[in-house]
Amino acid sequence: MLHILFFFLAFVSSSSNAMVNDFCVADLKLSDSPAGYPCVPPAMVTADDFVFSGLGVAGNTTSIINAAVTPAFVAQFPAVNGLGLSLARLDLAKGGVIPIHTHPAASEILLVVHGCITAGFISSSANTVYVKTLKKGDIMIFPQGLLHFQVNSGADGALGFVSFNSPNPGLQITDFALFANNLSSQLVEQTTFLDDATVKRLKAILGGTG
Amino acid sequence: MLHILFFFLAFVSSSSNAMVNDFCVADLKLSDSPAGYPCVPPAMVTADDFVFSGLGVAGNTTSIINAAVTPAFVAQFPAVNGLGLSLARLDLAKGGVIPIHTHPAASEILLVVHGCITAGFISSSANTVYVKTLKKGDIMIFPQGLLHFQVNSGADGALGFVSFNSPNPGLQITDFALFANNLSSQLVEQTTFLDDATVKRLKAILGGTG
Amino acid sequence: MLHILFFFLAFVSSSSNAMVNDFCVADLKLSDSPAGYPCVPPAMVTADDFVFSGLGVAGNTTSIINAAVTPAFVAQFPAVNGLGLSLARLDLAKGGVIPIHTHPAASEILLVVHGCITAGFISSSANTVYVKTLKKGDIMIFPQGLLHFQVNSGADGALGFVSFNSPNPGLQITDFALFANNLSSQLVEQTTFLDDATVKRLKAILGGTG
Amino acid sequence: MLHILFFFLAFVSSSSNAMVNDFCVADLKLSDSPAGYPCVPPAMVTADDFVFSGLGVAGNTTSIINAAVTPAFVAQFPAVNGLGLSLARLDLAKGGVIPIHTHPAASEILLVVHGCITAGFISSSANTVYVKTLKKGDIMIFPQGLLHFQVNSGADGALGFVSFNSPNPGLQITDFALFANNLSSQLVEQTTFLDDATVKRLKAILGGTG
Amino acid sequence: MLHILFFFLAFVSSSSNAMVNDFCVADLKLSDSPAGYPCVPPAMVTADDFVFSGLGVAGNTTSIINAAVTPAFVAQFPAVNGLGLSLARLDLAKGGVIPIHTHPAASEILLVVHGCITAGFISSSANTVYVKTLKKGDIMIFPQGLLHFQVNSGADGALGFVSFNSPNPGLQITDFALFANNLSSQLVEQTTFLDDATVKRLKAILGGTG
Amino acid sequence: MLHILFFFLAFVSSSSNAMVNDFCVADLKLSDSPAGYPCVPPAMVTADDFVFSGLGVAGNTTSIINAAVTPAFVAQFPAVNGLGLSLARLDLAKGGVIPIHTHPAASEILLVVHGCITAGFISSSANTVYVKTLKKGDIMIFPQGLLHFQVNSGADGALGFVSFNSPNPGLQITDFALFANNLSSQLVEQTTFLDDATVKRLKAILGGTG
Repeated sequence: MLHILFFFLAFVSSSSNAMVNDFCVADLKLSDSPAGYPCVPPAMVTADDFVFSGLGVAGNTTSIINAAVTPAFVAQFPAVNGLGLSLARLDLAKGGVIPIHTHPAASEILLVVHGCITAGFISSSANTVYVKTLKKGDIMIFPQGLLHFQVNSGADGALGFVSFNSPNPGLQITDFALFANNLSSQLVEQTTFLDDATVKRLKAILGGTG
Repeated sequence: MLHILFFFLAFVSSSSNAMVNDFCVADLKLSDSPAGYPCVPPAMVTADDFVFSGLGVAGNTTSIINAAVTPAFVAQFPAVNGLGLSLARLDLAKGGVIPIHTHPAASEILLVVHGCITAGFISSSANTVYVKTLKKGDIMIFPQGLLHFQVNSGADGALGFVSFNSPNPGLQITDFALFANNLSSQLVEQTTFLDDATVKRLKAILGGTG
Repeated sequence: MLHILFFFLAFVSSSSNAMVNDFCVADLKLSDSPAGYPCVPPAMVTADDFVFSGLGVAGNTTSIINAAVTPAFVAQFPAVNGLGLSLARLDLAKGGVIPIHTHPAASEILLVVHGCITAGFISSSANTVYVKTLKKGDIMIFPQGLLHFQVNSGADGALGFVSFNSPNPGLQITDFALFANNLSSQLVEQTTFLDDATVKRLKAILGGTG
Repeated sequence: MLHILFFFLAFVSSSSNAMVNDFCVADLKLSDSPAGYPCVPPAMVTADDFVFSGLGVAGNTTSIINAAVTPAFVAQFPAVNGLGLSLARLDLAKGGVIPIHTHPAASEILLVVHGCITAGFISSSANTVYVKTLKKGDIMIFPQGLLHFQVNSGADGALGFVSFNSPNPGLQITDFALFANNLSSQLVEQTTFLDDATVKRLKAILGGTG
Repeated sequence: MLHILFFFLAFVSSSSNAMVNDFCVADLKLSDSPAGYPCVPPAMVTADDFVFSGLGVAGNTTSIINAAVTPAFVAQFPAVNGLGLSLARLDLAKGGVIPIHTHPAASEILLVVHGCITAGFISSSANTVYVKTLKKGDIMIFPQGLLHFQVNSGADGALGFVSFNSPNPGLQITDFALFANNLSSQLVEQTTFLDDATVKRLKAILGGTG
Repeated sequence: MLHILFFFLAFVSSSSNAMVNDFCVADLKLSDSPAGYPCVPPAMVTADDFVFSGLGVAGNTTSIINAAVTPAFVAQFPAVNGLGLSLARLDLAKGGVIPIHTHPAASEILLVVHGCITAGFISSSANTVYVKTLKKGDIMIFPQGLLHFQVNSGADGALGFVSFNSPNPGLQITDFALFANNLSSQLVEQTTFLDDATVKRLKAILGGTG
């Protein structure tokens, strides 16, 4: 009976460095890399690292978008590092809107858990619009990198969860990219065909300068 | 004003064949390939293709596992083809169990929408066990290819949704791989250390022969 | 002397089907797939397939953007299929602008061959702006999926070439995604914070409806 | 004659940091990452790093499986780091068995160098069994992540070598994942349909608790 | 007892199209693609498809290289399609040589099964040489795309097997690329610094023209 | 107005570690990895990091090849790290030649900006030659890992730029791999069929020994 134990303990120890490859919980204190963060030593990893409870709490929707996005990306949930997957929670109060945006590095599936959400995306080059109104239990896929949005089209609040095929999909909200920074109004106007008043108005709302 | 339209229509048409790359809705009637199915021509694709409602209906849990798995993989939801993502619904009645299994080609995140689920996975080689009891709103990640399970540990039914970083993650339930086919009892016994009575009993339950 | 010929002819023929993997010139008449188009049979491929002369001709810049993009993507240059690379030519007349846009599936390097181009991109989430004015011989990289633009900031015309790490990077010009289709004005306004007059004006300019 | 030397020395030095990308011998003292270990500086690498002699020695088969697996994975052979390939040696004494197992992150090809081996794998979902008896010189492929086994079906010992398309394929032996750790007997029984006596017996044999 | 069968038969059939993703045996009659060949329908696949016996037979070494390469690439062994792995057999008679060559799309591990082989590769840019003499049981790794060679340095014949992390690694023997085709002698001389007599001599030996 | 700012500042900060994934400017002082270099902290990155001016200057063509290659790979242009793309400049004086070579890890597209260049590549196994003479504005693609060359076939100098789908494509010039190092003349002769005088002559020219 002991032989097999000896054999396997020997085997396991001889390749124990390799075991970390089952997972690679991010050590966020070290430098990121193109493939993600270095791994916490497996001996320091516990079951708690693989569970995240932050999506169980509704986000604060008291903003002009009446909505909140709560991410469980690698920065919040280090266990997804290197595993090619992450989640986020969408809370949409009545009238809530997730403004038009892209995820530079991931496709997304929206699952509607409560309420009624109108969602859509636009294809590249052909600029074809794909819009649907979703009810509880419906899922919709948004292909990688394409502009898309979600709007609460119901009478009450709505709740959704979005899955991404990246531990760190990124989020680029078009209005914030254009109006919430110091990109000069002249460049914004030249590259969007928007007039100066509109650009200035949105920079004022969203905290931009220039 | 027309110039720009001419310009862009010209541009769009000149590269219209490329536009299909925004997405590739599977044409399940054609042969699969290592990268997935060939694409339905984009002109035939509508918004309906990107939405799937099959996860809005509870699966039938009247089985000895008191549970059901309802997939939204490429075979059920062709729009996920090539987009690296899919979902499934887990219904667990009281006492429901998703038996120990693997997904050969994907990592998984479980989201608990209702009830209480005890879930775990085992690392390779070190055989370390990571088990947690999850409540509504918790998420847990299961690294690619590792044995894992989910058990309803609450007093009532439980509902979860699982995300995968593959349009077709596969599902290999260990008991079904060993006992629900014609793999000879002798080979099962040699390769599992199970005794003949146990193998014969489980083959009888799960429909296996040999 | 003949032995080696026999040996190698034998070897080559025995694995000749595999040779197509050196390259896979797209057969655009067949269905696309997530990995690209099926290959033209290698016996039908000639040196001409690997050369494209379409970038030697200036694009027509007589449009309101005073600029033209001439792609050498898989639709125009089928030899790039499966090889992870493509090019495009940018012609910018005096005052020319490539409006703010993304490439959903590729990073880009701009090479300035003539004139003076001011280019920039915005990071996701942090919304940080990276803008530089480039002279002849300068190169600038635009990370995958991020909003970016190019503006002729010189007194004369400018010429650039852009490289992409995809045979089919896609092109999503934000204004065309929002205003050159039938996406309802109401949804555009809800998801961009733009006012109705602005949306209607741009839809009129860019050929949109709704 | 010197010009070309000057030219190339200049060229080489200007891009010398890039040379490490030809290979990346693992520095096992540093943290692993999702893409593998950091590289030993190329100046410290010698030809010896690219050769491993550990597979030239038979493994110790005096165990209840009468077999041994000797890996040349990244932990034993750091030069495979980042190169997408590794090997292992299988020694099967008379009656030897490699118990049913998976490799979470790689496909495998078995080459029979001596003796007679009966090997098989089971497909996912369909649970189809693919079993063959192999003689010297035969090769068999086992697709990524699927349960498979090898049994010595000859009168004498058998020797095989297995190749993997990963520097660190992992090894999850089903019996060890279930019975060689502290996974509670109750959870094992719930998720495998095995009875308590069987679970307790195998935990005793394989060193498990709980 | 029947419930679970109904449940699982239902489940399996509902996602049966997806099962092909466990493997994708190449249908060599259809067009190749950047990801490999389309799949033979899984219902037509048998265990025989996953086994290849062609490497059990010594190659014909009666050529001026006194060596033979017997491939088990996708063209010979269609089951490797999409699985990222292939093998080949090297027979080296006394004095046998595998001339300097590259595999454009794969790394390689050589396993010496019999005899004594001197093997080496050269790094890019730095042009560093890594040469070792290998005995039975030794393995050596050759990084992707780098020039390498194998020479029988023993008194008798040698036998090796090489593994590749591609189903179709390609083989470009430098001498055959330069001298066994119609590449003009002038271009060969300009791009190799070889003199006309040498080029003409090797073209005559290897069957080249021009 | 402030709510949305609070909301987004909160969101941004909560996921700020993830933002580095938009780009990963190489920290060349740290160890490389199979996926590239660790990232400079994003807070230390400026627009200057994304621009490289080194390709604006002609390389020194006063060598026996009358040509120069000026790379903008990760070692020279750290911003390409992890972004899958790089560039290089080719200066060819009258009679200039880029000797036959490979890039182990990338496909290449050549753009002719000035003059006339004859370029070609050879397929693997079939050894088919694909040669074309290119004029200003033409582009030609060279598939990954295959031997190729460029020769100035015009009356004056020529200028080209080459794009690669890797931040670090490598460069292995066949003559330098064979003759510019200490690879023994005997091994070169055995593996190339070149005679001793030729090998000795080229080692003398290119600085090799042995």
